[in-house]
Amino acid sequence: MQACGIITLTTDFGLEDEYVGLLKGVMLCREPKLRLVDLCHALPPGDIAAAARLLRASWLFFPPGTVHLAVVDPGVGGSRKILALTVGEQFFVGPDNGIFSPWFNNTPPPQVRRVANTRLFLPRISATFHGRDIMAPVAAALAGGLPLAETGPALAPEECVRLALSQAQRVKDCLCGIIVARDHFGNLLSDICHEELAELAGDTNALLQVEVAGSAPLRLVRCYDEASVGETIALVGSRGVLEIAVNRSNAARSLGVDVGAAVTVRRRAPSPSR
Amino acid sequence: MQACGIITLTTDFGLEDEYVGLLKGVMLCREPKLRLVDLCHALPPGDIAAAARLLRASWLFFPPGTVHLAVVDPGVGGSRKILALTVGEQFFVGPDNGIFSPWFNNTPPPQVRRVANTRLFLPRISATFHGRDIMAPVAAALAGGLPLAETGPALAPEECVRLALSQAQRVKDCLCGIIVARDHFGNLLSDICHEELAELAGDTNALLQVEVAGSAPLRLVRCYDEASVGETIALVGSRGVLEIAVNRSNAARSLGVDVGAAVTVRRRAPSPSR
Amino acid sequence: MQACGIITLTTDFGLEDEYVGLLKGVMLCREPKLRLVDLCHALPPGDIAAAARLLRASWLFFPPGTVHLAVVDPGVGGSRKILALTVGEQFFVGPDNGIFSPWFNNTPPPQVRRVANTRLFLPRISATFHGRDIMAPVAAALAGGLPLAETGPALAPEECVRLALSQAQRVKDCLCGIIVARDHFGNLLSDICHEELAELAGDTNALLQVEVAGSAPLRLVRCYDEASVGETIALVGSRGVLEIAVNRSNAARSLGVDVGAAVTVRRRAPSPSR
Repeated sequence: MQACGIITLTTDFGLEDEYVGLLKGVMLCREPKLRLVDLCHALPPGDIAAAARLLRASWLFFPPGTVHLAVVDPGVGGSRKILALTVGEQFFVGPDNGIFSPWFNNTPPPQVRRVANTRLFLPRISATFHGRDIMAPVAAALAGGLPLAETGPALAPEECVRLALSQAQRVKDCLCGIIVARDHFGNLLSDICHEELAELAGDTNALLQVEVAGSAPLRLVRCYDEASVGETIALVGSRGVLEIAVNRSNAARSLGVDVGAAVTVRRRAPSPSR
Repeated sequence: MQACGIITLTTDFGLEDEYVGLLKGVMLCREPKLRLVDLCHALPPGDIAAAARLLRASWLFFPPGTVHLAVVDPGVGGSRKILALTVGEQFFVGPDNGIFSPWFNNTPPPQVRRVANTRLFLPRISATFHGRDIMAPVAAALAGGLPLAETGPALAPEECVRLALSQAQRVKDCLCGIIVARDHFGNLLSDICHEELAELAGDTNALLQVEVAGSAPLRLVRCYDEASVGETIALVGSRGVLEIAVNRSNAARSLGVDVGAAVTVRRRAPSPSR
Repeated sequence: MQACGIITLTTDFGLEDEYVGLLKGVMLCREPKLRLVDLCHALPPGDIAAAARLLRASWLFFPPGTVHLAVVDPGVGGSRKILALTVGEQFFVGPDNGIFSPWFNNTPPPQVRRVANTRLFLPRISATFHGRDIMAPVAAALAGGLPLAETGPALAPEECVRLALSQAQRVKDCLCGIIVARDHFGNLLSDICHEELAELAGDTNALLQVEVAGSAPLRLVRCYDEASVGETIALVGSRGVLEIAVNRSNAARSLGVDVGAAVTVRRRAPSPSR
């Protein structure tokens, strides 16, 4: 596999400080021609599951050979490992804390290395910012063409920390999920994916009823614009999961609903044919 | 006209989610050498007029051949068209909802195309994120040298949705406008432009009095530093419009004034010469 | 010294407006191949000391030949000068208001120029945005290879405005400092640097006790992960200064402590050997 010189950055650093800029400085020191793309720096501090979900929703929109640097690393300086891996035609670098769980069961399995080649690191390693001192230069080296095997010894995916991401449950004619994220627009994203929804729906969405946090049944529409202004709706959003929205407004705020709330999709029995 | 490989991004997506990053991923898939510049992602959700004003204040600071991708698109998935246009030596791509109104009356008129060439789109089109699935790849193609005509059939500017942006009114010796934006510093930007102000002033600013939201008359100064600390002033800011500021402080907060407030500039009669 | 085509941007502009994007547009007009890195745009408005500290903590993580553009410029349009300087192998461009104080006492001294070559500026200079109209094009010219001497006449570092950045004081067996910044995680950064701490500690950290804002004595640990969840700790963070943190939480919020609070490090007398 060939690196393409693009690195995405996903962190919980925010943009108030120099931290993201330093990752970029370190990477440009190693590989001046890199193209660096901010994927997200607003993950809730330490929220590994949110990072995993965001990466899973994003990676395939980047070119083959992209390196995804993911630094949500509350265990920095402790005993957690650092990983470099390839999945399909892409690379990932980040802490071994479950952030790459979405790919460990892939077929074929990802090639995983424990980052250990200290010649790639900065000369001085702090105890609190391995993103800057270890992961950034390793990501830059991979993006510059370093073979994965030179980052450190092989690990089996089974040796890596896994995080169980919440997943909707099918119970008879019902899908039971939860809200897992609230986006900038206040749309509420669930863990019910469009494939599960299609399976429940069969050949028509018309019998599906969606409820969030005990609400009245919501219409399942195709896009925001199919609803009237201010109407609460359910739809499959751009992440490919069921989301709850209020057309031209902020659902989280108007409904007072947030991450963790229950979402149910029910398939009504069809009315007797007339 | 020759594209230069630079694309600016203007959206109401915020930076909390992966949405801006995905636009970039899609564009880099199509044209790996693009240079991508964030112009603004903090437009109020769905505020097309704010986007139009921001683009109008910005586009000429970019090189000839720049593509401006503007995605404030509350009507996504509905019947609104998608436009690609050239104005002078620059390109614009975005929804047909009025976001490009500032240029439709230009002489010579912009060349406008209705984006319809599906070979440019992503293979799977969502119903809620045409920025990612349609506009980003079209913008990338233009930035990579695709002739505008290949994006779709021609439209006359008269066929496009227009938005009336608020504009100050001259009434005798008065300019009556409103506050249209509040910037990061709390400066309050009006719709009174410096040309109108110069016309009212004649050969001296000394007779002009500015009032905002019924305030006492404010001094019209040249720069913040001409005021004493904490003084409320009026000046022509970097957008070329009259703005209200409090030196070394936040005018919106200290004055309790926000978007929509009335601004008046009055020309006093000159005192009899002594 | 050779410019490398990289420019970092440090401002108090925030990201709500077009201001940062315009700096980039202007620079790309002059030098289309530049690589632009946002270092920080969230400095408190007008906080020159915060900008100076952030730059001091960051510059050496960038490649030789980098140009650092720093625009915290409350005196714009007034009589303050604009500076271009080289320190070691890097360039800086910004207002003469103390923002470059950390380097004026360097040995060898920085080469400083008063920016005055109007041929480098934009054709129209506003009174309120010299970052865009003067500093950005000068930074771009330097990054493109313009010799420093062509930006304007030489200045001695002694002629430049200096800002006294707060510095911890050693009083017998005590280091007395203050909190100078609060980062995105709520960690509280002091002005006590790791060298001073090491000098006080001698051959062991075990005798050091840290207090912030009159707190009970805090443990000095190596990394967040050495503390229990929710424990308030002190550690040397990635900036190389003592910081106060709460493991997996927000110290500023949980402790109700902010910038300006007193921090003391005390060296206890060793217990008699057993």
